Amino acid sequence: MASNLVSKLFRPPLTQLVCLRSGCLFRGKGAAAAATGTRSSSSGSPPEKISRYPIPYKKDLPYDIVELMEEVESKGGFLPNVFKVLSHRPAEFRAFFAYYNELMNKDTGRLTKADRELIVVATSIHNRCLYCVVSHSALHRIYSKNPTLCDQVIVNYENADLAPRERAMLDFAMAVCRCDTITEQHFKSLEEAGFDREDAWDIAAVAAFFAMSNRLAHLTDMRPNLEFFNLGRIPRDKSKDKAGDGN
Amino acid sequence: MASNLVSKLFRPPLTQLVCLRSGCLFRGKGAAAAATGTRSSSSGSPPEKISRYPIPYKKDLPYDIVELMEEVESKGGFLPNVFKVLSHRPAEFRAFFAYYNELMNKDTGRLTKADRELIVVATSIHNRCLYCVVSHSALHRIYSKNPTLCDQVIVNYENADLAPRERAMLDFAMAVCRCDTITEQHFKSLEEAGFDREDAWDIAAVAAFFAMSNRLAHLTDMRPNLEFFNLGRIPRDKSKDKAGDGN
Amino acid sequence: MASNLVSKLFRPPLTQLVCLRSGCLFRGKGAAAAATGTRSSSSGSPPEKISRYPIPYKKDLPYDIVELMEEVESKGGFLPNVFKVLSHRPAEFRAFFAYYNELMNKDTGRLTKADRELIVVATSIHNRCLYCVVSHSALHRIYSKNPTLCDQVIVNYENADLAPRERAMLDFAMAVCRCDTITEQHFKSLEEAGFDREDAWDIAAVAAFFAMSNRLAHLTDMRPNLEFFNLGRIPRDKSKDKAGDGN
Amino acid sequence: MASNLVSKLFRPPLTQLVCLRSGCLFRGKGAAAAATGTRSSSSGSPPEKISRYPIPYKKDLPYDIVELMEEVESKGGFLPNVFKVLSHRPAEFRAFFAYYNELMNKDTGRLTKADRELIVVATSIHNRCLYCVVSHSALHRIYSKNPTLCDQVIVNYENADLAPRERAMLDFAMAVCRCDTITEQHFKSLEEAGFDREDAWDIAAVAAFFAMSNRLAHLTDMRPNLEFFNLGRIPRDKSKDKAGDGN
Amino acid sequence: MASNLVSKLFRPPLTQLVCLRSGCLFRGKGAAAAATGTRSSSSGSPPEKISRYPIPYKKDLPYDIVELMEEVESKGGFLPNVFKVLSHRPAEFRAFFAYYNELMNKDTGRLTKADRELIVVATSIHNRCLYCVVSHSALHRIYSKNPTLCDQVIVNYENADLAPRERAMLDFAMAVCRCDTITEQHFKSLEEAGFDREDAWDIAAVAAFFAMSNRLAHLTDMRPNLEFFNLGRIPRDKSKDKAGDGN
Amino acid sequence: MASNLVSKLFRPPLTQLVCLRSGCLFRGKGAAAAATGTRSSSSGSPPEKISRYPIPYKKDLPYDIVELMEEVESKGGFLPNVFKVLSHRPAEFRAFFAYYNELMNKDTGRLTKADRELIVVATSIHNRCLYCVVSHSALHRIYSKNPTLCDQVIVNYENADLAPRERAMLDFAMAVCRCDTITEQHFKSLEEAGFDREDAWDIAAVAAFFAMSNRLAHLTDMRPNLEFFNLGRIPRDKSKDKAGDGN
Repeated sequence: MASNLVSKLFRPPLTQLVCLRSGCLFRGKGAAAAATGTRSSSSGSPPEKISRYPIPYKKDLPYDIVELMEEVESKGGFLPNVFKVLSHRPAEFRAFFAYYNELMNKDTGRLTKADRELIVVATSIHNRCLYCVVSHSALHRIYSKNPTLCDQVIVNYENADLAPRERAMLDFAMAVCRCDTITEQHFKSLEEAGFDREDAWDIAAVAAFFAMSNRLAHLTDMRPNLEFFNLGRIPRDKSKDKAGDGN
Repeated sequence: MASNLVSKLFRPPLTQLVCLRSGCLFRGKGAAAAATGTRSSSSGSPPEKISRYPIPYKKDLPYDIVELMEEVESKGGFLPNVFKVLSHRPAEFRAFFAYYNELMNKDTGRLTKADRELIVVATSIHNRCLYCVVSHSALHRIYSKNPTLCDQVIVNYENADLAPRERAMLDFAMAVCRCDTITEQHFKSLEEAGFDREDAWDIAAVAAFFAMSNRLAHLTDMRPNLEFFNLGRIPRDKSKDKAGDGN
Repeated sequence: MASNLVSKLFRPPLTQLVCLRSGCLFRGKGAAAAATGTRSSSSGSPPEKISRYPIPYKKDLPYDIVELMEEVESKGGFLPNVFKVLSHRPAEFRAFFAYYNELMNKDTGRLTKADRELIVVATSIHNRCLYCVVSHSALHRIYSKNPTLCDQVIVNYENADLAPRERAMLDFAMAVCRCDTITEQHFKSLEEAGFDREDAWDIAAVAAFFAMSNRLAHLTDMRPNLEFFNLGRIPRDKSKDKAGDGN
Repeated sequence: MASNLVSKLFRPPLTQLVCLRSGCLFRGKGAAAAATGTRSSSSGSPPEKISRYPIPYKKDLPYDIVELMEEVESKGGFLPNVFKVLSHRPAEFRAFFAYYNELMNKDTGRLTKADRELIVVATSIHNRCLYCVVSHSALHRIYSKNPTLCDQVIVNYENADLAPRERAMLDFAMAVCRCDTITEQHFKSLEEAGFDREDAWDIAAVAAFFAMSNRLAHLTDMRPNLEFFNLGRIPRDKSKDKAGDGN
Repeated sequence: MASNLVSKLFRPPLTQLVCLRSGCLFRGKGAAAAATGTRSSSSGSPPEKISRYPIPYKKDLPYDIVELMEEVESKGGFLPNVFKVLSHRPAEFRAFFAYYNELMNKDTGRLTKADRELIVVATSIHNRCLYCVVSHSALHRIYSKNPTLCDQVIVNYENADLAPRERAMLDFAMAVCRCDTITEQHFKSLEEAGFDREDAWDIAAVAAFFAMSNRLAHLTDMRPNLEFFNLGRIPRDKSKDKAGDGN
Repeated sequence: MASNLVSKLFRPPLTQLVCLRSGCLFRGKGAAAAATGTRSSSSGSPPEKISRYPIPYKKDLPYDIVELMEEVESKGGFLPNVFKVLSHRPAEFRAFFAYYNELMNKDTGRLTKADRELIVVATSIHNRCLYCVVSHSALHRIYSKNPTLCDQVIVNYENADLAPRERAMLDFAMAVCRCDTITEQHFKSLEEAGFDREDAWDIAAVAAFFAMSNRLAHLTDMRPNLEFFNLGRIPRDKSKDKAGDGN
């Protein structure tokens, strides 16, 4: 009975996971492959030093994790290092990505995917987390098609070129990030910018989850893939054209 | 195929969950029931204000969550409010407790359950999280059978009556809690106290998870059950005896 | 003449001192005695390590100090360690308790004794003072008959279940505790909560005195009596009944 | 009996009080009188605004306090405003000066009076206390005959022209001032500079007492007498000579 | 005579200024021109909003300033906005760039130009200065030919991929940036990394000058040219080749 | 041509430099000479230790710098140590004083010279800069003829006896000093106190320049001339009369 109970509790968040592994995050495979090579390896051999902890060989990983990794890599063109680094602890890997998936890969309420990435960037720079800042500012550039906003937010979100709703969103996210005592005043400020209490939960949950993620990245000295640094900086059409003719 | 993939990824962490719901956390049902009443309700009606967000009626919750709640309550004597508060978002509820379960309900490496609770208390007081401090200091009192150590740690872990290994453990947990940049020096200090790198991960993962939990508790203004305040303060045998025989 | 002058200056604050030594602070002697034993000793021998500095033998102390200690112990059931620790410097002992007595043992203006203890707890936790937090939260539980409010304030007075007047009182006490520059705005906020300028002085004087006390406790590594941890947590009537039948 | 007990407890610290009121703190009456006038008044009328709280008329003050004030003024040439400001609360006035007297007006152990003043200045500037910085830097200039050291300490004691023992003394005083958790390492550092544990108590007690005093000065917005600003800046012999011959 | 004196004092630092205006800072004119257009204007009309203060028309500027601007623009491909923004105050403009030129445009001692830019980036991110971080990380990418190091330093120089000498250099620069009291220990740490006292002066002078610059940028809300965001991110040879063949 | 260009760019800010070297800053030569001697030397020999870096012999300095020094000394009665210390780097010396001169030696807009000195003192004490606090509080005493205001500001400008416009000025200067993100709200607060945007620039430029100066003083461990400590403390007329009879 307990087994039945638990399998229901952890029923697969299927549709979102599909979204997680969809190729929309990354440029086409060809372009990415061109940029790859320095740190990751395409074979089954263990990758370069991207963590303070050992990275398991694929052959030693549980099959469900390998399968997920391969799908992410095939769709996105490269495998973000966080998958490799956290696979050191398979059970925690599963819990981490199930939670991540639940919070990040959706456009619900008034938060777009770009908004969620902006929250990650603003809070992760506060926490000085190299991996999260570099990788999620790349995702923000792609989702928002704005190649410079995150660079501004990384330096100082207070004078970045933000819309008022974005500023209110980040003000609240930063309050959560700093672990301020949240009061009714916080919710009022959000309401004035058009966010209701469910949006507040969404903002806070992303900020809270990355409070955890940033600390795991510090623990492991997780290094971002080189691909992330330039992702989304150059207008896609051009680069695609250039990279594309040979494919 | 994808469904097959995902079900494998999120295969139930069965043995630990049994541990989570085991009655070992709490005093016997009778003693707890005597202390209950002010904030929780034994029926299916919605509980008192313990969160800034609405608490769903049991009848509106997914069956797997209700089943888990009932098992926890029947074993522990009362249902910790965190279950009620987070059930506002069932999918996040599942991810939260799967992760929690993975980190807290085990005695692995060199970390006992009491050690894990001590980490939670030391980091949660830094974050001024009412729910986590009150509930996890209760759990620490029970696991450690030390009724005053957590009260000391809550005020100032630096001059609490800690063993050197506990101090080293908390020093590292606090570095993670503050989101310090973790360096090799941190691992050396842990090694001198007998902890290896896997223990370091365990310590950091607990501190990181509660960096998230504390922020969710601030978001929801989560209030601890009254039962937690006195749990484990009075020696169990005696109180049981007194409460048990004639009364 | 000078002697005459000085004796007038330091005329005994008699009525309050009686109050200081009244038994109202502590539970009945019997119950306390049962809880005692681990750290203090009932005989004239020097007590256990409760201070970084030596604790004088009673026989070596000035008679007036011994007499005070004995009266406090006989009324309260045990002698709070602060008396023992500070007796290392008899002249400072006298000045400390004369001042303490002047500020704490009275219900004047709009401040009850419970209010004064609440100020001590809120400011002492800011200063991470183990002795003062543990002992004065016990006194607050007794005076206020509220067994959990101080546990909340210790974690975070900003979201504790405080009345607006208590919150205004603690906001001001914390400003004094942090040594903020006090402005007219502070007094206006107090007025809105019903406190006049004499109340403001009372609040500030308590906060200022414990700014000193907390630092003396850190100097001496003063440890709280074990009795304080549970004092006032369990409803008095019951415990009295239980403890009382033999008396 | 209680009265007998209390009178013994608060027996007058006679010899030191004589020291407190001795003229050694201040320049000769004549020189000081020349500098006076703007803020204090020589008659019994209430003085100018030197406090946020009312200053009592002398005729309304207890006789012992008036007598002390007159002796201090006659010996020092002017009455420091702290006497006027705190006389608003006669009982606290008595406790404050008894304690002050116990800590400050003596050369015991390895701490000179100048050392004690230096501690007051270094900690009071940390607390941004106008009254204590201005008045006690004046006292330091007089005791130490060093007219510029306190100006250096006020800006930054870390690069002031201090002897190693003075630096160690201030390092410890600042740890107490900041309410750091005091550890054995602090005492070792003091020992290396020649201070034993009784000296440590003396240093800490002064720093702790002024933690209180600074906060009372902030409460009352206590303003320093104008005389203090220049006291001890000009070599005494010369100025006396100059001022003296014509008088 | 005074005029003679002053002209000698401010004799033109000629050779360095030539260096300042040399084209080595920027990509070729053609490539830059392609990226330009959104914020600056090639004509003499006033530019877009890049400052909180008005930007003078070229025709209203002193001739020497116009001449310098035109030379910088012709060599670098675009005119960095700092020239436009500070020209609001011509006299301060001259002093600022004379000083800047003295500190930045040289390879002396053990500091390369890339080192100097790294110092600017590390200190300017501490000061959250958008203009300086974005523009000087571009310059660092060009000088160092390392396209990602500054992105790392912007997030957290403590775990960036720095050589030990770079880390020592930045540790010292940050001490100056934070306005720490500089001690002999700082110089010893630099010596261990191979820097002598003249290098220390160079490092500190750059950090100090940008302590000023960052604050001027905050005053004026100075916005970086769009060109800076991508400068040096894409390997020059390749991009030139690609862009070049068709033109 | 370049030489022509540069000579125009750095055309001598003649009139102001005359002001810099005017004797108005300092007391008459005679009085100052009397106070001198301990640290500086009147001959061409190198002075006492006033810097961590070597002080060049006059004979080794460029003639324009010597000429300026001599003029400053002859007018002011002594040569402020900043001239000696910075002459270690002649080119930076020239840039520093040209900039300094541009910002400090004028009464423009709504800022008097005394206002500018007040800004220097308030920001330099925040930065704990011994040289700047001691020397510029002396200059403020002279310009303002207020012998005690700076001593108040040094301790705590928040409760100093400042006019509302001075307070608004220092609030803004401190925001710049702390490197806060400057917003429109800052300018509104200044406007309410009568300052326009050009005044804001003046205030900020002084605060920013001393952000640099303070850090250079920390680098060099620059020590103030003894003369500065008492300058302006004693009413000038009297001292002039005394010193003056021979003139």
